[in-house]
Amino acid sequence: MYRSHTCGELRLADANKEVTLSGWVQTMRKFGSITFVDLRDRYGLTQLLFSESLNTQLDASPLGREFVLQVKGKVNERSSKNANIPTGDIEILVSEFAILNKAVTPPFTIQDETDGGDELRMKYRFLDLRRNAVKKNIELRYAVNRSARNFLHENNFMDIETPFLIKSTPEGARDFVVPSRMNPGQFYALPQSPQTFKQLLMVSGYDRYYQIVKCFRDEDLRADRQPEFTQIDCEMSFVEQEDILSMFEGLVKRIFKDVKNIDYTEKVERTTWEEAMWTYGNDKPDIRFEMKLCNLKFPAHTFPVKDNISSLIAGEFAVFNDAETVIAIAVPGCSDYSRKQTDELTEWVKRPQIGMKGLVFIKYNADGTYKSSVDKFYTEDKLKAIADAAGAKAGDLVLILAGAEERTRKAASDLRMYMADKLGMRKADEFKLLWVLDFPLFEYAEEDNRWVARHHPFTSPKPDHIPVMINNNPKIDNAADYLKHPYAGIKANAYDMVLNGNEIGGGSIRIFQRELQEKMFEALGMDTAEQLHKFGFLLGAFEYGAPPHGGLAFGFDRLCAILGGSESIRDFIAFPKNNSGRDVMLDAPSTIDAKQFDELQIKLDLK
Amino acid sequence: MYRSHTCGELRLADANKEVTLSGWVQTMRKFGSITFVDLRDRYGLTQLLFSESLNTQLDASPLGREFVLQVKGKVNERSSKNANIPTGDIEILVSEFAILNKAVTPPFTIQDETDGGDELRMKYRFLDLRRNAVKKNIELRYAVNRSARNFLHENNFMDIETPFLIKSTPEGARDFVVPSRMNPGQFYALPQSPQTFKQLLMVSGYDRYYQIVKCFRDEDLRADRQPEFTQIDCEMSFVEQEDILSMFEGLVKRIFKDVKNIDYTEKVERTTWEEAMWTYGNDKPDIRFEMKLCNLKFPAHTFPVKDNISSLIAGEFAVFNDAETVIAIAVPGCSDYSRKQTDELTEWVKRPQIGMKGLVFIKYNADGTYKSSVDKFYTEDKLKAIADAAGAKAGDLVLILAGAEERTRKAASDLRMYMADKLGMRKADEFKLLWVLDFPLFEYAEEDNRWVARHHPFTSPKPDHIPVMINNNPKIDNAADYLKHPYAGIKANAYDMVLNGNEIGGGSIRIFQRELQEKMFEALGMDTAEQLHKFGFLLGAFEYGAPPHGGLAFGFDRLCAILGGSESIRDFIAFPKNNSGRDVMLDAPSTIDAKQFDELQIKLDLK
Repeated sequence: MYRSHTCGELRLADANKEVTLSGWVQTMRKFGSITFVDLRDRYGLTQLLFSESLNTQLDASPLGREFVLQVKGKVNERSSKNANIPTGDIEILVSEFAILNKAVTPPFTIQDETDGGDELRMKYRFLDLRRNAVKKNIELRYAVNRSARNFLHENNFMDIETPFLIKSTPEGARDFVVPSRMNPGQFYALPQSPQTFKQLLMVSGYDRYYQIVKCFRDEDLRADRQPEFTQIDCEMSFVEQEDILSMFEGLVKRIFKDVKNIDYTEKVERTTWEEAMWTYGNDKPDIRFEMKLCNLKFPAHTFPVKDNISSLIAGEFAVFNDAETVIAIAVPGCSDYSRKQTDELTEWVKRPQIGMKGLVFIKYNADGTYKSSVDKFYTEDKLKAIADAAGAKAGDLVLILAGAEERTRKAASDLRMYMADKLGMRKADEFKLLWVLDFPLFEYAEEDNRWVARHHPFTSPKPDHIPVMINNNPKIDNAADYLKHPYAGIKANAYDMVLNGNEIGGGSIRIFQRELQEKMFEALGMDTAEQLHKFGFLLGAFEYGAPPHGGLAFGFDRLCAILGGSESIRDFIAFPKNNSGRDVMLDAPSTIDAKQFDELQIKLDLK
Repeated sequence: MYRSHTCGELRLADANKEVTLSGWVQTMRKFGSITFVDLRDRYGLTQLLFSESLNTQLDASPLGREFVLQVKGKVNERSSKNANIPTGDIEILVSEFAILNKAVTPPFTIQDETDGGDELRMKYRFLDLRRNAVKKNIELRYAVNRSARNFLHENNFMDIETPFLIKSTPEGARDFVVPSRMNPGQFYALPQSPQTFKQLLMVSGYDRYYQIVKCFRDEDLRADRQPEFTQIDCEMSFVEQEDILSMFEGLVKRIFKDVKNIDYTEKVERTTWEEAMWTYGNDKPDIRFEMKLCNLKFPAHTFPVKDNISSLIAGEFAVFNDAETVIAIAVPGCSDYSRKQTDELTEWVKRPQIGMKGLVFIKYNADGTYKSSVDKFYTEDKLKAIADAAGAKAGDLVLILAGAEERTRKAASDLRMYMADKLGMRKADEFKLLWVLDFPLFEYAEEDNRWVARHHPFTSPKPDHIPVMINNNPKIDNAADYLKHPYAGIKANAYDMVLNGNEIGGGSIRIFQRELQEKMFEALGMDTAEQLHKFGFLLGAFEYGAPPHGGLAFGFDRLCAILGGSESIRDFIAFPKNNSGRDVMLDAPSTIDAKQFDELQIKLDLK
């Protein structure tokens, strides 16, 4: 028996008990002939007191940081208590000890604020994982896992495992593939998601399915992407969109309660995709704060035509006159920004990542006066009207961007977030959920001159829009005219759940009729042969009594990161990969043996 | 809203409620102008009554088997009740119905005893999964999953996900590999198990880890193997073998209780590997019944020498005299077997799969007399002595096999199982656990002239045997002499859990010292460079304070199959592969595009 108790367990009530503990040496302090050691394990820290009688033995077997130690001794009330740790009232008077394993000096300190850089910590991830800051992320991840499973279980969902060695049907992202030795010349693919399997399970009548499951995408990795990532993947039969929204609001609220002890009692807000794009400039708005975008001038192609408020800015100012779109944001309490501060903001929007030509401001001063960088073009009445339209109150600073639609909208969105960060409006301990609904079913890939599915090819159009889809030929002669095609207006029964400006989940009501699914594949440019080769099993399945169904998948890594108050998923994955898809600890990927190539009947073809 | 209730939910107490149900048409029966339909969903069957008023509509939209139907109506007490189903007291008087989806005739019947063959059912697995017989397996699998997670959670285990894209370090089985596009010429491997990661987690101090996780082995598939399979994978720190046995007995008992409502209160039996081999002829004995092997003659090389009972068979009978080993089994109550029956048994042991030259029997008749196929070689006293040694009682039939050690032992083991099956001793509803302990640390691969790890290279020798391992050179000059090498006698701190003659789990106490791990790799023929290339990260980790640890992995698919009373794991996997590793439903693996080869910088090299 290596221990009778853990290092987080003993209290004053245990005084005088004879105990055995095992753990790691966190710190050592020598005071003359006695030595104090803080012994650490997963559960906490306990102070050990090595008295004079053990000195000879300690000299013979000196302890060091991160040594693995087993001690026996008596629980003793401390003379100087430590109120910061649960075991702070006691210490162990060590009577016997054994060094279970030695440790060389770690390459960085095992502390919350470590001196180790990113690469070093990844190479020695097994040491990084010892740090409390990382451990609490991994524990939070498990707590989210457990909470989700409990909720789903109580709601009759079944965890059903789907296969990892499947068929390559690259649609959006690239598949990772696996050569088959037993079927030479053929390859499996690793799943980008269990999408078609969970739909088959609905056809099979399993009704409520879930999995917390690894998925794989061979994409060039942006800062916060991993080639393998985890989803909470769910699907339900005999449901409409409203059933799904209500179920999964429930799931997230349960996780808030179980993991953060937050009672999220307020109604989860909803917006349409279109509204989100106009109001926040992006489809995953952070609604912890307001600062909504005020579209002073809508692009000419906007359909249906929005209330035309561009008369507000009508005048002599060529920049506004020439711009496709003009967007204002009222930043609260910043009317007293200095010239230096407004100049800095102008420089910020002119950075290549933002790409604007300049920034116009109107100060709605606390005394009710107005001051603007475009004073010479607009009267004070005009300035007031614009500031009012943007929702500014006395003391606010109105920032205005003008330019081409897409870039300006994105810049306005970025500026909104930038100002919110600056003003401390994005509080890590505040959580605001938002459903974004009614996504477009299609996007148009102008370069390939074809429609692509915005969510995925299994998403159903809104029932009203099914005839539009069925009765129109998807072909477009002039790619630039795609917005005029009826398909551009088709909305999907698709929904994203957004938390604090991050998409944490998304899903849709699925197509469950063969004809509609065929029409969808056709719209995406797949001919019948390709449809049958890639998805014949699914089209077939829809003929044998497929129920109406829909579902949703949460990005588990991101959900955990946001709940943990971080925006980096890597900190919440036990063994993550770097931006080149490498595991620097394992040094993987790596070369393989000639024998492996031989058995797989493949060879390299390096450029 | 597609339904107010499920098809398994309504009872007499719900009479007169207006309800909405959705489900599949299981059966239809027309009686004159009224039609009965059994509507099925995941939760049960409910009888629908379509009365005369709906006839015109039914004629216009005729129903068929497996159609997806939504009905509204009133719950009505049935006149003729069906006591076999929970909803058997009621029916729905349908007032409105809608066909949600049609179905073509399924290629086989959706019933417990289906008319579909194996290949057909696999091709249409989504229909096979509708059958109650399959559904209850999938439900059992989920129940085992849930039960295991609950137990492990309550015992402080944390589910921590380990990566799927790792490094290829083929040791025993072949790895599946995944070409890396971002690192051309390099490959990931899919994990054969999370072994090294869970050990690193112990080094990181996570203390109690588990995962229910997919593992991958690219092996030629025997009848009941799958290229991807699931393990309940567990690891604990600061434990000795006894701690692990006790924890995981607890887990299995909890699963018995939760899933089968069995109170497994008896002590879990234990045997050593060596004892199991002598007593049952194999290392995963079914102990639901006795019929232990009686070794009448041990091989000459047996060490330490067993009690020599070969004097019992000393005599004129050349077959016994010449045989390396002679093994008897007393089969209860079969002394009255006819000549035809004993001839049949003789033919059975002579089949190539068994490979014996013949079978000797002694009938210990109910009247106390003896009759044997070797009467002319042995006196009745001798026969009695042999039968006594085999533990026969009056009325039993003693079967005796003689020949080369390994083959004879395996034949005796097979014969024991064969007779048990014949006599109904292997009851599907009886469960007997057994720990098999003290496995040899090494096996000798005579063809390669090297030691291989019997369990895996991370298994620790028994503490007493560590000096034997450290102080001896593993090299052997003459492969045939391997039994004389001290390594042949080294036992491991390794254990298998056996249930009803199937290994359901296995594990070991691990090596946690760098020097011992290096010695192990060296014993397996790995030089330092190879050790560092493949396992440098683990050897490194052991230097930074690795705690004593050990663990175990359950074969989840097999565990479920046995609990479900089956010996085929495929019936307990939602989407299994066939013996060529193919998913016949998806038609995977399959060819991939030229573009994929191009991006991965590999090409085929078909023989």
